[in-house]
Amino acid sequence: MTDANPKAVVLLSGGVDSTTTLALAQQQGFEVCALTFRYGQRNAPECEAARRIARRHHVARHAIVAFDLREFGGSALTADIAVPKDRALAEIGQGIPATYVPARNTIFLSFALAWAEVLGASDIFIGVNALDYSGYPDCRPEYVEAFQRLADLATKAGVEEGRRFRIHTPLITMSKNDIVQSGLRLGVDYALTWSCYDPSPHGEACGRCDACVLRLKGFREAGVPDPARYQTPTGAHR
Amino acid sequence: MTDANPKAVVLLSGGVDSTTTLALAQQQGFEVCALTFRYGQRNAPECEAARRIARRHHVARHAIVAFDLREFGGSALTADIAVPKDRALAEIGQGIPATYVPARNTIFLSFALAWAEVLGASDIFIGVNALDYSGYPDCRPEYVEAFQRLADLATKAGVEEGRRFRIHTPLITMSKNDIVQSGLRLGVDYALTWSCYDPSPHGEACGRCDACVLRLKGFREAGVPDPARYQTPTGAHR
Repeated sequence: MTDANPKAVVLLSGGVDSTTTLALAQQQGFEVCALTFRYGQRNAPECEAARRIARRHHVARHAIVAFDLREFGGSALTADIAVPKDRALAEIGQGIPATYVPARNTIFLSFALAWAEVLGASDIFIGVNALDYSGYPDCRPEYVEAFQRLADLATKAGVEEGRRFRIHTPLITMSKNDIVQSGLRLGVDYALTWSCYDPSPHGEACGRCDACVLRLKGFREAGVPDPARYQTPTGAHR
Repeated sequence: MTDANPKAVVLLSGGVDSTTTLALAQQQGFEVCALTFRYGQRNAPECEAARRIARRHHVARHAIVAFDLREFGGSALTADIAVPKDRALAEIGQGIPATYVPARNTIFLSFALAWAEVLGASDIFIGVNALDYSGYPDCRPEYVEAFQRLADLATKAGVEEGRRFRIHTPLITMSKNDIVQSGLRLGVDYALTWSCYDPSPHGEACGRCDACVLRLKGFREAGVPDPARYQTPTGAHR
């Protein structure tokens, strides 16, 4: 990477989608500054995954911002609420499940905007997907467009320099199969990634939450083995 | 307060504006849940001020969310950048000064939205002011409107329940004089508040930064003494 490469902030949770997004941003020539959040999530192994991925992909910078959303609660990922299990694919995406974390992507994008402004970057990548997804409101195109409008009004860079922020969502219309295939073509090592919402005490994926079900579907349709370590028995969807 | 009072999240930095906003929200009958941020700011005494004010006003809840924006830097409040001093009133508000913290109000409002959603609240109060202010882009009415549009698209409450969030900005067109007078009528004790961007090691206000200059102007015009403790000599604007 040279100074000529424009910087981009890439939200990196450590899952399949954000890792593929990172690879796509690098393919497009951006110097990636990866941004990860430790927010008190039940699925904390994703932060370690993000660290491994950032290293493997030689990102320019990796920031991990810590705060605690357990004080607010209201989600199966941040409070003592059961993670839905064994839901059929047809069921996932119908309604907003208990794993929805209130305003999470708005918080994440706000920090991304702050960092982008300081870095002199105009580009922010987020791996939201509105096809094979869990029905979260803050993964939809109209939401992302509203954030982009906000960004230009919110910042010194937008108001004084006329900088126009772009929120890139390269996965928005892709299936999980497409996502996995794209990543594999770009050399992504999905063994480094973490998807499960409800890991076992031994750090294995449950194989039964929505995140595992969608992940397993992606690898099954792509015709490649999923390198994640699952608890046995492996659940109906494997 | 009874259960019949609707809840509101009030952003409380501990300064004159946010404290007056809190008092106005209570006057309007809201049960106030106050939200304060410890973000690595140079002017950390404001967090203690917020705690005192929340207690004095018997708020229903007070949350202090901690994260560290010094990792991003880019502001006189979060990096080793000088705080502007001794600026004339005519100068303040012309251009965006070094004390601007990138995307700060967007981050603050995002957390407020998250908490409001969990609390079942539709109302968020922020003490932004576009008259006697420091020229920050994220204090303008068009910014606040854009955030309100985003909020409805961002949340489960907005999408599934049709909840409409309202971002209240009761101070937006008020002068500092009006703000101080309103607060005094509502029984605000401004001795509890903290405004200075650049406190001395002994916890005194500098009397020379934009925040002090605007505060002193407010009290001078309101014709009441400012109870803040200033360093001596007190600077040209007292």
